[in-house]
Amino acid sequence: MENDFVKEITSKTEDFSQWYVDVILKTELADYSPVRGCMVIRPYGYALWENIQKLLDDRLKATGHKNAYFPLFIPESLLQKESEHVEGFAPEVAWVTHGGDEELAERLAVRPTSETIICNMYSKWIKSWRDLPVLINQWCNVVRWEKSTKPFLRTAEFLWQEGHTAHRTDTEAEEETLRILDIYQDLVEKDLSLPVIKGVKSESEKFAGALKTYTIEALMGDGRALQAGTSHNLGQHFAKAYDITYLDTDGQLKYVWQTSWGVTTRLIGAIVMVHGDDRGLKLPPVIAPIQAILVPILGKQKETVLAKADEILAQLKDDIRIEIDSRDEYTPGWKFNEWEMRGVPVRIEIGPKDIQKHQVVLVRRDTGEKYFVDESELLPRLKELLDDIQNNMFLQAKKFMDDNIRETDNFEEFREIIEAKRGFIKSHWCGSPDCEKHIKEQTGATLRCIPFSEELNTGKCIICGKESNTTAYFAKSY
Amino acid sequence: MENDFVKEITSKTEDFSQWYVDVILKTELADYSPVRGCMVIRPYGYALWENIQKLLDDRLKATGHKNAYFPLFIPESLLQKESEHVEGFAPEVAWVTHGGDEELAERLAVRPTSETIICNMYSKWIKSWRDLPVLINQWCNVVRWEKSTKPFLRTAEFLWQEGHTAHRTDTEAEEETLRILDIYQDLVEKDLSLPVIKGVKSESEKFAGALKTYTIEALMGDGRALQAGTSHNLGQHFAKAYDITYLDTDGQLKYVWQTSWGVTTRLIGAIVMVHGDDRGLKLPPVIAPIQAILVPILGKQKETVLAKADEILAQLKDDIRIEIDSRDEYTPGWKFNEWEMRGVPVRIEIGPKDIQKHQVVLVRRDTGEKYFVDESELLPRLKELLDDIQNNMFLQAKKFMDDNIRETDNFEEFREIIEAKRGFIKSHWCGSPDCEKHIKEQTGATLRCIPFSEELNTGKCIICGKESNTTAYFAKSY
Repeated sequence: MENDFVKEITSKTEDFSQWYVDVILKTELADYSPVRGCMVIRPYGYALWENIQKLLDDRLKATGHKNAYFPLFIPESLLQKESEHVEGFAPEVAWVTHGGDEELAERLAVRPTSETIICNMYSKWIKSWRDLPVLINQWCNVVRWEKSTKPFLRTAEFLWQEGHTAHRTDTEAEEETLRILDIYQDLVEKDLSLPVIKGVKSESEKFAGALKTYTIEALMGDGRALQAGTSHNLGQHFAKAYDITYLDTDGQLKYVWQTSWGVTTRLIGAIVMVHGDDRGLKLPPVIAPIQAILVPILGKQKETVLAKADEILAQLKDDIRIEIDSRDEYTPGWKFNEWEMRGVPVRIEIGPKDIQKHQVVLVRRDTGEKYFVDESELLPRLKELLDDIQNNMFLQAKKFMDDNIRETDNFEEFREIIEAKRGFIKSHWCGSPDCEKHIKEQTGATLRCIPFSEELNTGKCIICGKESNTTAYFAKSY
Repeated sequence: MENDFVKEITSKTEDFSQWYVDVILKTELADYSPVRGCMVIRPYGYALWENIQKLLDDRLKATGHKNAYFPLFIPESLLQKESEHVEGFAPEVAWVTHGGDEELAERLAVRPTSETIICNMYSKWIKSWRDLPVLINQWCNVVRWEKSTKPFLRTAEFLWQEGHTAHRTDTEAEEETLRILDIYQDLVEKDLSLPVIKGVKSESEKFAGALKTYTIEALMGDGRALQAGTSHNLGQHFAKAYDITYLDTDGQLKYVWQTSWGVTTRLIGAIVMVHGDDRGLKLPPVIAPIQAILVPILGKQKETVLAKADEILAQLKDDIRIEIDSRDEYTPGWKFNEWEMRGVPVRIEIGPKDIQKHQVVLVRRDTGEKYFVDESELLPRLKELLDDIQNNMFLQAKKFMDDNIRETDNFEEFREIIEAKRGFIKSHWCGSPDCEKHIKEQTGATLRCIPFSEELNTGKCIICGKESNTTAYFAKSY
């Protein structure tokens, strides 16, 4: 039963990086394009993104956010108004210099993120406390001219949503920042079955121009961390640079407090890296474009089997995202492997013997277990099974992550762990950027986040040995 | 009751162009941005677009199309492979020349449309007849460096969907082109209440690189035509330029037949221009972000009225897109005008007297008619009313269009109509580009389309007098 498809995918343990690219190309999630660093998201990959979009968009709308659309281009002078921000982004900006045959009077940045253009509009729109809060989100493409790229994880152009809010008070802005972080965690853990660690970034890792950056960090199959979503409390940095003021009830003109936050198509890369195996993709049912693939076992009784398969399809298609593979030119074995590779959570088999027994066969992608189900119970059993797969995939990933969180305040041990096993390391840190930098330079690991709940007691900074009540997660990352 | 808001909108009959801009800015559909020719689509306008997207996307998926995403940038050499295409688009391309500090080896076009980059991928993906048809659609932004711009109707950057399909035969491609045209007509007439004329473009007006361009043409309130959607049969022009071949069942390598098609955010401009009046917007219920606005008439019995209003809101909100305006700082009259300006199809009023009588008041935006409805019948009556408004808005627009279609084969009369009244003129045309050009140069009117059903008998070309069995619609257009 082993077939060509599976053999074409490099082994995950042998060469994780090649395995990742193989899976993406062969399952047709994405393809390389003739534009440096830009990929094409193919229909199967885009359907995943649409499902993620819908699940997040519903959550954002339910919490009062509205979508809008701001220009792709940002005049250079506008980009430069917030100094930390421009320093952070200028090196990776793509510049438009000509429109048709004419050279532009001022270069236009292709947006790397939209704080600057949005702040410019907020400065015009926000006049009074009555106009607050402003809760706007945008689904769009952004461009960052990255030197080295990898499909979904780091590409010159990517798709994302970016939320930009303005508030009356510091407290409201901080609440919003954390509300969004919780929404991201809920989306990623419940719908994508990806466990995350939540926390705040250090000064050196925060968003350019932010007061504080909160993050959710996931752990990939090769032990590297991936920043899966960030939520920034911008304080009044941008409000002051772009002059966003409102007249408060007390008659005073005040600067607003802002937040911004985003998740991107890199979430698809995380799904591949966390759940995938040597056979290919494994997709969580909630977001799988195809939740169940129906494979009729044709043969001499082809007509009968096809008729029954169509009946089953009709019975399920309003409740389940299901497709049928009744192609003549491939064997059932070939099809089993093909759909396993594509990560479809459940395969439904129906053959002549099953028809006689009034049963169908369900095979789950996550564990390979097989169930013989009475036809009359198919829909409820299938729904149960999809729920179970969703939960099981989360638990498997959670176990992997938990098994790969190690604690040490000994730098030699830290170094050995990073070299041998990677994963997260939780260590005491004094808070000094120098100690953080030392770790990065010596091991390649970066400070991923400082968690909210301090599980460790006070201890000594892993580098300088100073007393510290701060623990932080470190890891090599994408 | 007349208030500031209404006064702020220029009269539609006095200055249509200024009225249009006033409506868009004051209803917060969109705003100007600091980037030349680019607008910001504000939440109210974007919600309209999201509703349109959903209604079209469902139709496209139901007919087998899948969404994907291709890069924003197109290398210059790739853009230049199809000669007619590049000639048509090169003058309005925005060029990226630098990434960060580095000058690029080859300039990148910001996509004005994506045929070229998509064809490049299709050439790689399509190998066999088994791979056909390919039915892909993309929702994205595109950029055309236009000299003169107008919100929604013509902007340097706009949002659209672009479908790109590949087929085995000419017949299949032609069927697809017309299937999409029908879908566009259905969307625009049923959901946007905008009547259109359907037909084919002349050679000089067709899409750069197409074999044939089909169009739906709507008539705006000032008598100018607007191209509301186009569907192109590309023949094998692009297949040959980009080498897209497949191995057919007969063992022969053949070029595919292609189509492409799109509608854009300009549809929002059409909605404003066709349905709007001196009081502001009028939105068709099917796509209105808010279908009904509930205005409680507060006063001494504020608590009672608010409680009843909340009860009504709870009763309707699962079936109707409804919002409540219970702001203290504005009078009911001010609110009535505000929501009329914003084009909300139905206003629901509830006051102390209504509560006594167990009734609510419904006021429709399209005709101003008022209904007193028993509380127990509210939901069914409201649904009926929304349907009726949807139909009535179409009929009103259809009557306006029909009243503004004039037939003549006399060029002097043609000229007078264009100068005095505009609208569509249906005339005999011999098919010569010279006669078409003469009309354009002399009157500013262009050939909008040649209709499918020839209602006129044969006659003489309005310019050269040659016998002709072709009639065409001409108009000044946006």
